[in-house]
Amino acid sequence: MAAAATEYGVKGSPETEHPRKAVGWAARDHSGVLSPFPFSRRNNGDCDVTIKILFCGICHSDLHSIKNEWKNTIFPIIPGTRTTCCKIFHVYLLYDPFAAGDLLSKVVLWTLFALYYSGYSFLREPEHKHEIVGIITEVGCNVQKFKVGDKAGVGCMVNSCHSCNSCKQGFENYCPRMILTYNSIDTDGTKTFGGFSDMIVVNEHFVIQFPENLPLDKGAPLLCAGITVYSPMKYFGLNEAGKHLGVVGLGGLGHVAVKFGKALGMKVTVISSSQRKEKEAIERLGADFFVVSSNTEQMKAAMGTMDGIIDTVSADHSLMPLLLLLKAHGKMIMIGLPEKPLELPVFPLVGGGKMVAGSCIGGIKDTQEMIDFAGKNDITAEIELIGMDYVNKAMERLVNADVKYRFVIDIANSLTAA
Amino acid sequence: MAAAATEYGVKGSPETEHPRKAVGWAARDHSGVLSPFPFSRRNNGDCDVTIKILFCGICHSDLHSIKNEWKNTIFPIIPGTRTTCCKIFHVYLLYDPFAAGDLLSKVVLWTLFALYYSGYSFLREPEHKHEIVGIITEVGCNVQKFKVGDKAGVGCMVNSCHSCNSCKQGFENYCPRMILTYNSIDTDGTKTFGGFSDMIVVNEHFVIQFPENLPLDKGAPLLCAGITVYSPMKYFGLNEAGKHLGVVGLGGLGHVAVKFGKALGMKVTVISSSQRKEKEAIERLGADFFVVSSNTEQMKAAMGTMDGIIDTVSADHSLMPLLLLLKAHGKMIMIGLPEKPLELPVFPLVGGGKMVAGSCIGGIKDTQEMIDFAGKNDITAEIELIGMDYVNKAMERLVNADVKYRFVIDIANSLTAA
Repeated sequence: MAAAATEYGVKGSPETEHPRKAVGWAARDHSGVLSPFPFSRRNNGDCDVTIKILFCGICHSDLHSIKNEWKNTIFPIIPGTRTTCCKIFHVYLLYDPFAAGDLLSKVVLWTLFALYYSGYSFLREPEHKHEIVGIITEVGCNVQKFKVGDKAGVGCMVNSCHSCNSCKQGFENYCPRMILTYNSIDTDGTKTFGGFSDMIVVNEHFVIQFPENLPLDKGAPLLCAGITVYSPMKYFGLNEAGKHLGVVGLGGLGHVAVKFGKALGMKVTVISSSQRKEKEAIERLGADFFVVSSNTEQMKAAMGTMDGIIDTVSADHSLMPLLLLLKAHGKMIMIGLPEKPLELPVFPLVGGGKMVAGSCIGGIKDTQEMIDFAGKNDITAEIELIGMDYVNKAMERLVNADVKYRFVIDIANSLTAA
Repeated sequence: MAAAATEYGVKGSPETEHPRKAVGWAARDHSGVLSPFPFSRRNNGDCDVTIKILFCGICHSDLHSIKNEWKNTIFPIIPGTRTTCCKIFHVYLLYDPFAAGDLLSKVVLWTLFALYYSGYSFLREPEHKHEIVGIITEVGCNVQKFKVGDKAGVGCMVNSCHSCNSCKQGFENYCPRMILTYNSIDTDGTKTFGGFSDMIVVNEHFVIQFPENLPLDKGAPLLCAGITVYSPMKYFGLNEAGKHLGVVGLGGLGHVAVKFGKALGMKVTVISSSQRKEKEAIERLGADFFVVSSNTEQMKAAMGTMDGIIDTVSADHSLMPLLLLLKAHGKMIMIGLPEKPLELPVFPLVGGGKMVAGSCIGGIKDTQEMIDFAGKNDITAEIELIGMDYVNKAMERLVNADVKYRFVIDIANSLTAA
């Protein structure tokens, strides 16, 4: 993976390879310390928009990237919007699991996977995802969705092949040639830089129209956490009023799943390992029920009642008790990423016609639909707003999952001053 | 479980508790040896039909039942049509997995599950399922689907609650109060006896109209193997011409899945651990491709090409290589029943938006649709037809999976003579 930089051939100096001056905060080495970094962006193409970045969230994947914990960072790196899922998906696509035969390949694959995660603590909350939001300052001659002054957002993708089945069906998130927002190689051979910066130039297809009424700072994380829960809820039909949705884990993804479930008219039960979160789940987020997963009476009472479960937990956990909460034909959707394989008990799946599915963010069309729905229903994420100069401290706190539920950087008011 | 007989209260002597004389072959104890057994059937009710049984398949679950290997047999027992899945489903429903707390409950549950299977060899081919077929000899005054002389079939269910969500949606197979064809307690408190007998009385809702053109003997197993593959193919949209279906394991279920896939206009690839089955898969069953799961080149070539996979294997096996064969949003359907939990690698699920689902037989409406489709497309199962007096030998051979693909007993021509 470390060979990617030379393999793809990064064109030149980040500061001069493109014509437009930009400034960001980058990590120069695996210490991961971020500091001001002058670089450049491409000119605005015919299908591009230029965005003045106002806010950008901080994600666990940013933390992994700036410290090169995934062993694929090309320094210098400007983080800001990229998901763990995408990262893992790309490894998975690049790696040839059959080359070394069944057993060996399995060992290699899981070793590789383990390498990608250097710390168990990170695994518990990879759902701290977020997004770039800002104002359109320039549009190309072919741009149709935007005009100067519009509010806009960018997710973890800035391009894809546009021709594979996934792209054709609106699931660019599963395109094998998807280009990520940072630390990825763009079509012109240069490296992509993320949202911890003053501006960005993106093909309009990958830019989301941001609802007028939604606060940019609190709405921003929806472009990642929101779509990550909304996309599978829609795809698997878990978005119908009256259905019963279970949400496992009340973190960055979980708290947003509760909000979407309630706005969709669903009955929502939070399943958590900690009683401490009950008050917050019910009173602040509006969940109907709260079940502590170790409380046998509560779990029994909820058995066979749920149409679907959104499982956000990335730590190792048992699927059996969760599968038993599902009705026949119930759907369990994994959006967390446990380090090791989970135990899959087959007979409750077979006996109840149930499923365990995975889902990774969502396509552009669904992202637009999700944010429009959030705008209409006043759904926002819970955030802690910080200045750019707090980013290194924020990264430290992130290691200890000391944030509810994510940091968002006030880029416009603090980047240039830093 | 052994308390079921007294708990439910079996009414009286099987020979006299009902008014109509019948004869079957029953096992009297756990030796499992079958011998002629006079018993009785209920009078034909207003919604019932009486069927003169012509053929009945032999299933591995028959073998388990007559030897009391599942520890729930109420002797004497007349087997004939009951699926492993249903059995397991019922254990799963009866058992309270939360009563003893998380870890202990898990241990108890899996111990119970392990008890249900006394031999590893059985697990490899539980897909030897089959069905009762015969001719209607009497119809109740409210019966609408049948007249005397019609060909008819009975699956592994003879009743259900008719009011739960599963029943209302046509999935009686997932009704928690489903009554199995044998060794189950009927609504009147008497025990149900299976198809190794001369006649049976069944509520018409649970009786399938058998297509005129389909041979009764070779068509019979479709009522179990056919619906077991057809139901999930339909439910999960794996029944569209042009889609690519993988079939893992070429046993009783697998060979029927290939036939249905081809009749539906799909591209079908058989994935098998044994090269020996290639000729049969391609030439006899009409599969398009054959992949040996240990052949890395073949597996690589098939990577990312399949819309769905029907996995019939009950032995422990790795899901990872199979998940890699799926396209994004690909669907893997488990209809085998591995003894122990399988390892579920979450990241290919998440990264590719894929799913692992289970499925157990199918509902009555889908069973009728399946057998009608089989009739129109001349789909039959591969069988070895035997006489009733060969049944004990057949059971011995079944232990060694020495049958292609299942035994069917010529009841009408051999039961009375035995």
